[in-house]
Amino acid sequence: MIGQRQTLLDARDRVTGRIPYTINLEPPGTLHVAILRSTVPHARLVRVDASAASQLPGVAAVLTRDDFAGSSIRPLFGPVFRDQPIVAMDRVRYVGEPVAAVAATDLRAAEAALESIEVEYEELPAVFTPQDALAAGAPLLHESFDDRAPGYADIVLQGQGGNVCNKFQLRKGDGLAGFELADEIFEHEFSSPPVQHVSMEPHAAVASFEGDYLTVHTCTQTPYAVRDALAYMFRLPASHVRVVVPPVGGGFGGKTYAKVEPLAAVLSKMTHRPVKVHLTREEEFVTNRKHQAFIKLRTGMRRDGTIVAREVQALFNAGAYTDISPRLIKNGGYGAVGPYRISHVHIDSYAVFTNLPSAGAFRGYGVSQGSWAYESQMDMIAEAMGFDPIELRMRNLLLEGDTFATGETLHGIRFPEVLRDATTLFEAGRVPPPAEDDGSVKRGRGCAVIIKSTITPSTSAASVKLNSDGSLQVLTSTVDMGQGAHTALSQIAASALGVGVGSIGVVGPDTDVTPFDLTTSSSRSTAAMGAAVREAVFDVRRQLLDLAAQQMEVDVTDLELADGRISVVGDPASGRSIAEVVTASRRGTLAGNGSFVTEGGLHPETGQGIASEHWHQGAVAAEVDVDVATGKVTVRGLRASVYAGTVVNPINARMQIDGSVSFGISQALFEQLIHDEGHPANSSLSEYALAGLADLPEVFEVSLIEDPDNDEMHGLGETCLPPVMPAIANAVADAVGVRIRHLPLTAERVLDALEEQR
Amino acid sequence: MIGQRQTLLDARDRVTGRIPYTINLEPPGTLHVAILRSTVPHARLVRVDASAASQLPGVAAVLTRDDFAGSSIRPLFGPVFRDQPIVAMDRVRYVGEPVAAVAATDLRAAEAALESIEVEYEELPAVFTPQDALAAGAPLLHESFDDRAPGYADIVLQGQGGNVCNKFQLRKGDGLAGFELADEIFEHEFSSPPVQHVSMEPHAAVASFEGDYLTVHTCTQTPYAVRDALAYMFRLPASHVRVVVPPVGGGFGGKTYAKVEPLAAVLSKMTHRPVKVHLTREEEFVTNRKHQAFIKLRTGMRRDGTIVAREVQALFNAGAYTDISPRLIKNGGYGAVGPYRISHVHIDSYAVFTNLPSAGAFRGYGVSQGSWAYESQMDMIAEAMGFDPIELRMRNLLLEGDTFATGETLHGIRFPEVLRDATTLFEAGRVPPPAEDDGSVKRGRGCAVIIKSTITPSTSAASVKLNSDGSLQVLTSTVDMGQGAHTALSQIAASALGVGVGSIGVVGPDTDVTPFDLTTSSSRSTAAMGAAVREAVFDVRRQLLDLAAQQMEVDVTDLELADGRISVVGDPASGRSIAEVVTASRRGTLAGNGSFVTEGGLHPETGQGIASEHWHQGAVAAEVDVDVATGKVTVRGLRASVYAGTVVNPINARMQIDGSVSFGISQALFEQLIHDEGHPANSSLSEYALAGLADLPEVFEVSLIEDPDNDEMHGLGETCLPPVMPAIANAVADAVGVRIRHLPLTAERVLDALEEQR
Repeated sequence: MIGQRQTLLDARDRVTGRIPYTINLEPPGTLHVAILRSTVPHARLVRVDASAASQLPGVAAVLTRDDFAGSSIRPLFGPVFRDQPIVAMDRVRYVGEPVAAVAATDLRAAEAALESIEVEYEELPAVFTPQDALAAGAPLLHESFDDRAPGYADIVLQGQGGNVCNKFQLRKGDGLAGFELADEIFEHEFSSPPVQHVSMEPHAAVASFEGDYLTVHTCTQTPYAVRDALAYMFRLPASHVRVVVPPVGGGFGGKTYAKVEPLAAVLSKMTHRPVKVHLTREEEFVTNRKHQAFIKLRTGMRRDGTIVAREVQALFNAGAYTDISPRLIKNGGYGAVGPYRISHVHIDSYAVFTNLPSAGAFRGYGVSQGSWAYESQMDMIAEAMGFDPIELRMRNLLLEGDTFATGETLHGIRFPEVLRDATTLFEAGRVPPPAEDDGSVKRGRGCAVIIKSTITPSTSAASVKLNSDGSLQVLTSTVDMGQGAHTALSQIAASALGVGVGSIGVVGPDTDVTPFDLTTSSSRSTAAMGAAVREAVFDVRRQLLDLAAQQMEVDVTDLELADGRISVVGDPASGRSIAEVVTASRRGTLAGNGSFVTEGGLHPETGQGIASEHWHQGAVAAEVDVDVATGKVTVRGLRASVYAGTVVNPINARMQIDGSVSFGISQALFEQLIHDEGHPANSSLSEYALAGLADLPEVFEVSLIEDPDNDEMHGLGETCLPPVMPAIANAVADAVGVRIRHLPLTAERVLDALEEQR
Repeated sequence: MIGQRQTLLDARDRVTGRIPYTINLEPPGTLHVAILRSTVPHARLVRVDASAASQLPGVAAVLTRDDFAGSSIRPLFGPVFRDQPIVAMDRVRYVGEPVAAVAATDLRAAEAALESIEVEYEELPAVFTPQDALAAGAPLLHESFDDRAPGYADIVLQGQGGNVCNKFQLRKGDGLAGFELADEIFEHEFSSPPVQHVSMEPHAAVASFEGDYLTVHTCTQTPYAVRDALAYMFRLPASHVRVVVPPVGGGFGGKTYAKVEPLAAVLSKMTHRPVKVHLTREEEFVTNRKHQAFIKLRTGMRRDGTIVAREVQALFNAGAYTDISPRLIKNGGYGAVGPYRISHVHIDSYAVFTNLPSAGAFRGYGVSQGSWAYESQMDMIAEAMGFDPIELRMRNLLLEGDTFATGETLHGIRFPEVLRDATTLFEAGRVPPPAEDDGSVKRGRGCAVIIKSTITPSTSAASVKLNSDGSLQVLTSTVDMGQGAHTALSQIAASALGVGVGSIGVVGPDTDVTPFDLTTSSSRSTAAMGAAVREAVFDVRRQLLDLAAQQMEVDVTDLELADGRISVVGDPASGRSIAEVVTASRRGTLAGNGSFVTEGGLHPETGQGIASEHWHQGAVAAEVDVDVATGKVTVRGLRASVYAGTVVNPINARMQIDGSVSFGISQALFEQLIHDEGHPANSSLSEYALAGLADLPEVFEVSLIEDPDNDEMHGLGETCLPPVMPAIANAVADAVGVRIRHLPLTAERVLDALEEQR
């Protein structure tokens, strides 16, 4: 089953809309929610009066800060520091922040009631960029916060003060002193704008309190984190909070950690009815986003093209609340070193509060911002020093057994192979010339190669249930959000048991019954949960062989299991089916358990330690046409290469790369969230520009590099996103000689640069 | 926790109606079903034409036999022999049998469409009593049937032919020759009418096919049996059929095995939409029922009061289809021997097909019918031979180590104690005299004692999931149908882990995730599933101690777990909490598994073997007033005693007895399903007489006899039902000297008997 092309098991149901997405759930008696949101970026909340609204027909409850007075419910939540209110308490900190929420029998009644809620703001000065937020005299967003959630002991409260949310630092070798060894030093600043995940399915949750038992159906990527957040919020044992995740319509990091679930749950607690929160597209734009980042990169080069020192100063715009910023700036910090052998490294990476919506996890997880910087600069250095950009990379790329910036020894390293593979795109004749070349269209080539970690330490556990007919249920808390995780896990389970995929059913996530999993993100599910599932199947397989040995009165070491039958080695006729063995055991069902736990962590002062159980390695080569008359960039050819270890499902794997590249092209050319003094200016799909299918290259190649001698599975859900943007920018520079250091490469920006150049 | 009074965990939600009963479920897009039912008791189905109906507005599908032509769906189902069609195929066999079914967007549209379905019957002669059905020349209901479901290898096709559905026989000692040792022989016939379960919640199911994956929410007592029936029907692996059982509003046996689920599932398969079937009360009356029974009892007595021989000839009216009759007539057969030491036993017990709705499991499971016979006859023998009825019983009651009719040696036997305890009701002054005694009210006393098996062999399995905060989920396929099973299992789990009940969450049944359980019936859940849960908790407890030993660097044998903390024996300060150990293990959750499997079975020719893992023992004493002017019987006092082993929850246990006695009084005095040539004559709650609260005795005592030296839990959900009817009949005979051998003891029947006596 491993390595076979398997159509996604739920493909037909996803496409036909038959899947019970959370947005389609509506238990009888469900109340619907409309949210009153702040119209100002920063203010003291003088008055919130919901007395008139709560009397309106159809309105079951209006939640304001007053409802927490004297309540045992904890009003603040957050995955690391609990600093985010369900509805604003003393202050609002961004335009769009929930101030009050109405639960009513239908959505129109809820929306109508919003108009009757009276809110009085006393506006405060606001800041919108990390630079402004760090300036002397900047208004403070948070006086103090240290209510830390468990599981984040490694996140120290370092760097805090002013508007610093958190700081990550790394010191390797001689740090800044390493620059003394350099012949040339290059220093540039690069920036990436905030962008939105734009999942097809918006955030939605249906919460239902029955007595002191809370059930929440939600499209989260982190069911256990949401369960634990709600248990803490309502002071319940974890066994009384059930988080069920139906199939999800896209996550991309945007659905990690509690988002709309606390609001739905509090309103259900108040009304004793199921409560559904379902965000509009406009609300999506103020709910989560990619971190805006400003990265200053200083690189010390030896004359021979060796990188000897690198300094990273990264400012990540966290927005108003912490969310997962302290983790992300770590990855964004050490991830900005790149896949290069550099002896001396000095990193300061900051998450900074501003009066904008909170930023959180986003496909690429900080690495996009860093690689945008270092892979752009790599070409700038190559040009300045007269090297071929591919050769310059090759000279410095990390090799098997090398030491990374974190001090850990690397294994399973294939950077040169990945980069070489990607750049085969440049072989003559692969990408057709510009269609109508009136001289205004210039062709250019660029490439980029990146390194990305997977969350470490981490834990995934799985259970399996073998039925009396020999079919098997896999119980997993891995979320299927369209990436095909459940299909891949089915293949892994089927392979481990020696049966067909059709015998497998995958269940979960459902925190009442499916074992712990840290998160469906970080490109980790196939590798981590796959290993846990395999162990669980092996557990049940051992039991099966033991039972068969008893039943057949032979020694278990004489038995083998193949094609759903257990027989004495070399005597297939002696066999009996799995179903026969389970039935004869009279146990009804057999249970197996497995887990996959990785160890790691970085020292808070030096950033030294183990950052990743294995490393994601990807490269992209791009050929672009730049129309110098309009500034328009067209990606004509693109080859994405990734080291995959063992590919479980080639269809899935290919689609993951397709998706990553699409995201990358979209961010390279179009995407940016625009604000006007904190007010969102393009919060709708008619105003927010995204790549469409027509923007994908006509030559679009995906290469999955496997290792036949190694059955280790490498995650690949994000790897080919970060290199797309610098590869395209490098190709633009190659085509027309302008270097754009600020994403996206819109036609206007390219045209401006061209005009500046003239 | 064991033995503590624990309010049912879902009591408040049940009473306030907040529980998501199946009848309250309605996923978006749900279709509703109306069923066209046969208007004749027996006919060849000449024509079913749904062409007009299927064109009506709102109608999504009309199911008739034609839909199975060329379909891979198997149209017949049944727990033992698959002889019951989803909708009638070639014939109808009872009034009320489904002939066609309409799925429409709302129930009114579905009901309206029924009128447009054209059905042509060719009527056939019909039979309604087992006696008529066995008579020469009786019309045959089934030509042949031998499509046996797995798990019933012990049910041989014996006795079939004519209208015999199945036969059970038992031969012990010298059988009929044993009567040669008797000084006196008593022979009487007794009958019990069919009665209805009248659960508060009717049968309901919501089925939903997504691709080749079927999910059914249903109020069944046997989720795994329903899953297997549906998997077979649709030719799916068990891993693709998910049966979820929400809290159930009463079962009493009536919700065992597939009932409305196949119909809902087929219609969902046809329409690709969720389909809900929800029976009306009138439909309930033709869906399941207690077996009507005619039992001829011949008892050979020694002059000293010793019973030496007993012959049982039992005819159980199976109705039109097999359902579970072959199992029930076994229990009804050996159960008719009673709790007495009898050396020579000869039993022939028949299930017979008739043109009435099928009979199935009913609280008491065949034992009510048998004990109605033997405990009535016991008093008749005592009177005829001049013995005190209690003393006659005492002389013959089975004792520890005795051999039952099945040849098995009995253990945990407390019959004399149970009977003695019940009859303490008769101590002077316990029951007040008749309120207005104008001479027409006569007081009488009666008692009865019964033996009942629990289904054997059987299997229950459980899993537990220990969370990182130390709380625990119990995964069980035991159905909570108001009997408080989940509360009892919570107590057992809490006790085994050494934590409070508040830390426990119970999940299930959900065949995708909760392990196999044979059935929630036969008074078995607390004992069987309780043992499985305990073993599963012990499994996780062992892992917990091993982890703690590693973490604390001590030997595991030096550790103890108490009050949620693990510490070195004798050094409580050394302890750490369960939560700390799980968290430090980094496994996220720990899984434990347990099972409880009993062995047994009876020889098909002799009925010898193991019938029951342990035996239910109950006695009832009753004082009644009989108004000789009206025939009205009023139960004034009643004491029910049961051997309980260890009582897990005294509140629950007491309520189980309350409920059993209420059922018994209702069946003793009021209940009977009446038919007029096969047409139901009282299929509504305005016509079908049931006991109300006012019919319960003012002195109503329940005694749970425990064994402090034994932690074995004995089932007690049914034990005190069967003795109620004969105890009351015996009291009536004691009061006014009339012996009524046919239930119920309606005022009319008592008055008739009194007039006959005059």
